[in-house]
Amino acid sequence: MVSRQIEQGLAAVDRYLQNLVSSDVDVLQDASVHIVTSGGKRVRPRLVLLAYLAAGGETLEDAVGLAAAVELVHTATLVHDDINDHSLTRRGKPTVHARWGRTFALLTGDYMFAKVYEMMAPYGNPFNVIMSQAAVRLVEGETLQAAAAKSGEMNRETYKQIIGLKTASLFEAGARMGARLAMKREDDVVEALAEYAYNLGLTFQIVDDILDIVGDPAAMGKPVGTDLTQNRGVMAVQNGDAALHIDGQVAAAVVEADPLQQMMAQLRESGAVEIARMQAAEMGRRARRALHRVPPSPVRDEMEGLIDSVLDRDH
Amino acid sequence: MVSRQIEQGLAAVDRYLQNLVSSDVDVLQDASVHIVTSGGKRVRPRLVLLAYLAAGGETLEDAVGLAAAVELVHTATLVHDDINDHSLTRRGKPTVHARWGRTFALLTGDYMFAKVYEMMAPYGNPFNVIMSQAAVRLVEGETLQAAAAKSGEMNRETYKQIIGLKTASLFEAGARMGARLAMKREDDVVEALAEYAYNLGLTFQIVDDILDIVGDPAAMGKPVGTDLTQNRGVMAVQNGDAALHIDGQVAAAVVEADPLQQMMAQLRESGAVEIARMQAAEMGRRARRALHRVPPSPVRDEMEGLIDSVLDRDH
Repeated sequence: MVSRQIEQGLAAVDRYLQNLVSSDVDVLQDASVHIVTSGGKRVRPRLVLLAYLAAGGETLEDAVGLAAAVELVHTATLVHDDINDHSLTRRGKPTVHARWGRTFALLTGDYMFAKVYEMMAPYGNPFNVIMSQAAVRLVEGETLQAAAAKSGEMNRETYKQIIGLKTASLFEAGARMGARLAMKREDDVVEALAEYAYNLGLTFQIVDDILDIVGDPAAMGKPVGTDLTQNRGVMAVQNGDAALHIDGQVAAAVVEADPLQQMMAQLRESGAVEIARMQAAEMGRRARRALHRVPPSPVRDEMEGLIDSVLDRDH
Repeated sequence: MVSRQIEQGLAAVDRYLQNLVSSDVDVLQDASVHIVTSGGKRVRPRLVLLAYLAAGGETLEDAVGLAAAVELVHTATLVHDDINDHSLTRRGKPTVHARWGRTFALLTGDYMFAKVYEMMAPYGNPFNVIMSQAAVRLVEGETLQAAAAKSGEMNRETYKQIIGLKTASLFEAGARMGARLAMKREDDVVEALAEYAYNLGLTFQIVDDILDIVGDPAAMGKPVGTDLTQNRGVMAVQNGDAALHIDGQVAAAVVEADPLQQMMAQLRESGAVEIARMQAAEMGRRARRALHRVPPSPVRDEMEGLIDSVLDRDH
């Protein structure tokens, strides 16, 4: 029942997104629709809808706009990330950058971000404050990541800070907005749902970084090892302690010579993946504990299930 | 008296901007301060402050935040423009792109845009709606310009549409927000000031495009001819009618062989510059007419003077 309701809500989010990014400027319209319809996991809008229901919201359609806005912020950053990473495929399709070129990819990301701002404006506060703070943090996290990749200085603390800013903040903001829309006031249930979402975001990102190493490229819809070659992600951290230290230059050389596969095999065997899995599981437990401050309901069960599916996902 | 008040207000805008772009992430802080303190003309925040006073506002400090936000939107787009145009200098200093590289320039633009969204959020509406719509239009204008440059298809109508979207919309939004802040309601004075600003924006952009051809690089603080080589700006339009048709490829070849100087000299002699000047003057007259719907005051005189200084500027 709950999951059917959520699937219907997510279908509405997809429709909303497609209408939202309509523009008289053809390339903005085409490029935005291309990325928006390329089948993301939709975990962020799912969270907004679940948090709305878990906080007692009764008209799920009311939360669809917020859910779409959160997904669009995320999508805008993907378009810009793909420029910076020179990525050619995403979700099994060409990136905006690969298909329309750098200039239009940059402008498409700007456009999607401006559309978020435009569609959020009528919501007023606290929604605009919550969303805009998450957007600032997201960019700060991306920048810290790029700076760490460039300097080759990555450690556990920096990694935690980066994934908190670049991933968990938007998860948190989504749940907080969904819950606030339902409750129309500050409340510990809102805080608990926000904390759940923040920790779910950390879990999600660590698993994502693991999949960059052990994932099946066909299932992922994109090349694996990208983060590794760019000295990013959880593996760069785990290997700070190990013999196999990766810095930007070495990693770049590795790509050239293509012993990337070999390096990835070594990593899989080194135990680094297992350490990262334990960290993800710990963040998942924190998400679960926060959830226990929310009144029990089928929606809460669904949210608990989401932790497991994030931990167990293979793409 | 008025101009002294405005200069003090603009100094406050500069301080506000510097505080606004502070971040724990060093590169965002450094790159943002670099561009924000590099001495722009500040015509947009000036407009916000003038419109606030012209509409009867009595506490100029109240408008400083809005003025800073408008300037920051503009600055964010400059940082992204410089990536797309491969520009190395701006306002006589290295561009963010030249100094910090493309990845950080892209993120710095995103950061500044996110900060605008964050600082605007508490203003509520109508301010967030006005600002966000202007941001969408700005990106649409930039994109139309890039598309026209790529296809080589530029005509008078497209040019007018582009400068309306990319430049005049933000001028208009700034004046509208300043006036609304003062009057706290819709009013014909608000509309008149918005119309004045829109036409002043068109004037400003046409003159800017003329200066790309006839300007002195030392006074401009950047190379001239950039727009010409990229098949942009008013000259691309004027020459649609003339023998000297410029398309993207020809222009690129021109840069290689460096008869750019020669082409610019030809343009200066062809009468195209004079036609563009007449168009700018006509937009200036429209701005002046709109201003006559605003009650007479020393501030209104100052705003009339601004039209002349935009028309007469040499950098």
